Amino acid sequence: MNEGKAMYNLAETLYPIYRSITGEGVRETFRILKEWLGDTCTFNIYEVPTGTEVFDWTVPKEWVIRDAYIEKKPGEKILSFQDCPLCVVGYSKPVDEWVTLEELKEIVHTQPDQPDLIPYVTSYYKERYGFCMTENQKQNLKPGRYHIVVDSELKDGSLTYADVILPGETEEEILISTYSCHPTMANDNCSGIVLAAQMIKYIASLEKRKYTYRFVFGPETIGILTYLSQGGRWRTLRERVKAGFVLSCVGDDRGYAIVHSQTGNTLSDRVLMNVLKDGEPEKVKEYSFLERGSDERQYNYPGIGLGVVGFCRSKYWEFPEYHTSADDLTVISEEGLQGSFNIMKEAVDALEHNEIYTANTLGEPQMGRRGLYPTLSQKGVWDGVRVMMDVLLYADGRRDLLEISEAIHVPVRELIPVIQTLENADLIRKK
Amino acid sequence: MNEGKAMYNLAETLYPIYRSITGEGVRETFRILKEWLGDTCTFNIYEVPTGTEVFDWTVPKEWVIRDAYIEKKPGEKILSFQDCPLCVVGYSKPVDEWVTLEELKEIVHTQPDQPDLIPYVTSYYKERYGFCMTENQKQNLKPGRYHIVVDSELKDGSLTYADVILPGETEEEILISTYSCHPTMANDNCSGIVLAAQMIKYIASLEKRKYTYRFVFGPETIGILTYLSQGGRWRTLRERVKAGFVLSCVGDDRGYAIVHSQTGNTLSDRVLMNVLKDGEPEKVKEYSFLERGSDERQYNYPGIGLGVVGFCRSKYWEFPEYHTSADDLTVISEEGLQGSFNIMKEAVDALEHNEIYTANTLGEPQMGRRGLYPTLSQKGVWDGVRVMMDVLLYADGRRDLLEISEAIHVPVRELIPVIQTLENADLIRKK
Amino acid sequence: MNEGKAMYNLAETLYPIYRSITGEGVRETFRILKEWLGDTCTFNIYEVPTGTEVFDWTVPKEWVIRDAYIEKKPGEKILSFQDCPLCVVGYSKPVDEWVTLEELKEIVHTQPDQPDLIPYVTSYYKERYGFCMTENQKQNLKPGRYHIVVDSELKDGSLTYADVILPGETEEEILISTYSCHPTMANDNCSGIVLAAQMIKYIASLEKRKYTYRFVFGPETIGILTYLSQGGRWRTLRERVKAGFVLSCVGDDRGYAIVHSQTGNTLSDRVLMNVLKDGEPEKVKEYSFLERGSDERQYNYPGIGLGVVGFCRSKYWEFPEYHTSADDLTVISEEGLQGSFNIMKEAVDALEHNEIYTANTLGEPQMGRRGLYPTLSQKGVWDGVRVMMDVLLYADGRRDLLEISEAIHVPVRELIPVIQTLENADLIRKK
Repeated sequence: MNEGKAMYNLAETLYPIYRSITGEGVRETFRILKEWLGDTCTFNIYEVPTGTEVFDWTVPKEWVIRDAYIEKKPGEKILSFQDCPLCVVGYSKPVDEWVTLEELKEIVHTQPDQPDLIPYVTSYYKERYGFCMTENQKQNLKPGRYHIVVDSELKDGSLTYADVILPGETEEEILISTYSCHPTMANDNCSGIVLAAQMIKYIASLEKRKYTYRFVFGPETIGILTYLSQGGRWRTLRERVKAGFVLSCVGDDRGYAIVHSQTGNTLSDRVLMNVLKDGEPEKVKEYSFLERGSDERQYNYPGIGLGVVGFCRSKYWEFPEYHTSADDLTVISEEGLQGSFNIMKEAVDALEHNEIYTANTLGEPQMGRRGLYPTLSQKGVWDGVRVMMDVLLYADGRRDLLEISEAIHVPVRELIPVIQTLENADLIRKK
Repeated sequence: MNEGKAMYNLAETLYPIYRSITGEGVRETFRILKEWLGDTCTFNIYEVPTGTEVFDWTVPKEWVIRDAYIEKKPGEKILSFQDCPLCVVGYSKPVDEWVTLEELKEIVHTQPDQPDLIPYVTSYYKERYGFCMTENQKQNLKPGRYHIVVDSELKDGSLTYADVILPGETEEEILISTYSCHPTMANDNCSGIVLAAQMIKYIASLEKRKYTYRFVFGPETIGILTYLSQGGRWRTLRERVKAGFVLSCVGDDRGYAIVHSQTGNTLSDRVLMNVLKDGEPEKVKEYSFLERGSDERQYNYPGIGLGVVGFCRSKYWEFPEYHTSADDLTVISEEGLQGSFNIMKEAVDALEHNEIYTANTLGEPQMGRRGLYPTLSQKGVWDGVRVMMDVLLYADGRRDLLEISEAIHVPVRELIPVIQTLENADLIRKK
Repeated sequence: MNEGKAMYNLAETLYPIYRSITGEGVRETFRILKEWLGDTCTFNIYEVPTGTEVFDWTVPKEWVIRDAYIEKKPGEKILSFQDCPLCVVGYSKPVDEWVTLEELKEIVHTQPDQPDLIPYVTSYYKERYGFCMTENQKQNLKPGRYHIVVDSELKDGSLTYADVILPGETEEEILISTYSCHPTMANDNCSGIVLAAQMIKYIASLEKRKYTYRFVFGPETIGILTYLSQGGRWRTLRERVKAGFVLSCVGDDRGYAIVHSQTGNTLSDRVLMNVLKDGEPEKVKEYSFLERGSDERQYNYPGIGLGVVGFCRSKYWEFPEYHTSADDLTVISEEGLQGSFNIMKEAVDALEHNEIYTANTLGEPQMGRRGLYPTLSQKGVWDGVRVMMDVLLYADGRRDLLEISEAIHVPVRELIPVIQTLENADLIRKK
């Protein structure tokens, strides 16, 4: 639970920051992360100017939001950005005018099916302004005139993203990606950020690692497109990435979910399924790529095709607090974050050990003289060594450890010490 | 419903004609078809002389039937070909003699499980004669002597078949085949003939078409064997035919059926299944090739192997009127024929659009600036463009449109306009 | 039932012999087998000296057991090898001393869940001694001192195994293997020995055979390892063996079982499943290779990989008498052995006929003029020739007879005469 507590504490620090796809909220978030990670790693922060072309897109203007409110009379605010950051539609342009109730209602967004929650709404790539409030508040608005104010600015600036590279013995990479663009919500997306940060600490602590690990933090969609396009990085990733995970909504404790890759059978799919089935399989939901919603969309796009999967606890769209004011620090917990960390750690461990193995002897070895087998044969007595024999008999130079695991119905986690025993006894070798 | 009415009217004209595998009934049928199609196409009629070898078979003698009856006393007919064409066994040789009741019963065929219907019986390749009546009539025959007369002739003549070729941009072909040998029955087989004729009109009306379309009309089995063997046509077809359909019993309105090809996974299987599942999937019956019964037998034979499928509404053998006097014009309907036409039309449209597609951008395109995507992001709002994004993410240069359709669970019919939108926006290309 | 009776009689002769992995019991067993087979075949017996290295193992010392007993007073034996051969732990070293009840209990083995049966226990590769008795007897032992005697010897000697090769038209081999190391138990393993012997007689009686048949008899595990390693025989087998069966516990009449090969889809798997499903499929149990327990372990080991399967009636481990004094001649029966013989015979017949077939004609042949088809066509009449047509339509030069059988849902046994009819009519050929 150490990691759970550390992650929750970090989430508490990050939660109140008002992030958007660009601007100071993201920069502040990255400054805190960099400090939190300390000398664990080099935390690289990048700025890409407004107007830069990234594939089919253009880096947008930077949005500055200073204040926003609605008042019935001067000084009588009925809604204020200072109290409730979600009350302004993201990327709203400035406005300062008096409107009628009818005019107001046209720019007010609510979530009618959750009448006491304020929805999170943004407006990308079209200049407009708007407010969000509860459906109940909207229903109770009195006729009359309202003063609406958005003190914001859309200016040439830059888009901010970050990455961390932890080199391994090979250039082959494992990608862990999360997004940094959601304001004042806890599960979506503080939880993803803090899990990625904790995984950096874990990977950095490994004495040796086969893979190079790449962590990416950026605004959803436009940030990842920028990341992939800048310097032709997508070519490098397409060559090197062997598996990858997009982290999203990993802080609650209601279950686990995988969003499969486009083909559904990549190394990413296989390893995450292996780990998820190892724990409480009845709590695991599998979603096909048709249910995708986060940056697995870009990483799996034709021509890029990294075959990454999404990892969630409660999947985005599926939990009631999703994209509302209710997604606060009570939705996530130390236990919830710890559970996600355990899964990702187990997935990394499985990948690090996922070699193709070949048995060394012809015919079963004599386990007895190696002290690995009972010397007395009676029915029912030798079940304990069964897994060892199963591994040997399936280590045929064609299956990797994940395939052996699937064939013999034992999770990779349990096979790792078995493999080590068999390697020490010279009974098995990496292909 | 325009096509349904036209087809039904044509069926009314063709129904009373007494067809057999050879002879004037087939020729009359083809004359009517040729006239009905007018200058839509070139309707080619072929005659192949008796005795011609066609693969393992020989074109049989031509059968002429002028009259047939049974009478108890001269002038008191109890059964007459003039009133009921099915009462004579097809290909009966001539006879004119008095027989006892016992002798009569030996040459009378009935359908004991449907005692008030007259079965349709033929005798190919063995010279005999016989009569068909209802089981009830047979049970009530009084002892005594009966005068049996078949005024027929088996003579050197020819076997008649026809085809229509509608050229497309390529030499690759779609084959549509039906048979022309059943006397005075409506669903089996007037319905197949009129659907094929209507499809000729539809294909001819297409402004452009990728495929060349080949329509074949001939007696079941021997006719198709003749068609394939004449001039080594099977070699041409084996090279060119990409998909094909044998039409049979397509005029009633009870459901839909596919008879799968020998391998079960050809382009023909895939496209027809796609279309059938698009409509009322609960009304669709899938039959394996083990249930084959019409000319899919020849087209799928080893060495020919065109991979065609059978298409029916109620499958032959399965509906109660099958091969009896009850298969009359009340069994088929405008609605039934229209439904079949709609399926075949949709299958052709799907084939014409079944290209391999590749997305043009790296990463998701910005749909918003193309007017293809809402610019406001709120949960639950953007479902409408989901299919468009699904197509893009699966357009990986490996899947054809049918495979994309299967992967994203949207019928090809709905994808055709989506593809056109995406092509117009330059977001996708044919491979 | 002739074979059942012959096998049961042979089992009666072999049952009382005290076999072990080495020694006179095995030699006596082989002498009897050789005599029983007479001039049917050459029965080769091999001796491999103690200390010979066989892959990862070493041929052990030969064990001689002359007597063993426990007595409370001189002359008052409470347990004696002469009455009950299972009472001494296999490979016990000599001992002759007085022990306390507590000391005795440490070397006494029982089967507590079957308190009135004596378990079969052996101690390979570690020098020790021990006794087996019923749990009831152990519970009733009185305090005091006991005289324990094992009059045995572990000496340099040899391991004995045997084989029979019945040459066929090709060098491709079918392997039938069983083990010869279990003392005084009937189903495990007299039944396997007598079935293999009967199969030798059957194979030898065949007028012609495509395959060469190799029968192997040796102690489980070490014997088969020795067999494979001697003279590099495993290389020959790896090249030649096309299918193989390990026979074990094939004498009772409770059901049938297959233990699948490591991959689960070899020719061995396919042919045995085809035959088992042909009989009483509801009595068949399929076990995956994870449930392996006999010499399929060595034959499937990585690098050897013969893809053999195990064949049992009640599988070892699963029937209550397994490895106890209750596995006597009442467990097996003439009917049980006959059933197993029928299965193996049918499997051999299927393998001998398992060619790839190709239809000779283009399009369906005219069966009528060959007398193979009714000349009168009426609905429901021609089902009898359906299988013949199914075979022709699936004989596409790609499928072997087993695949045709699986595709058309008719067991190979029923297809063999159909194939012969079609070959005689020149309608089909071996590829």
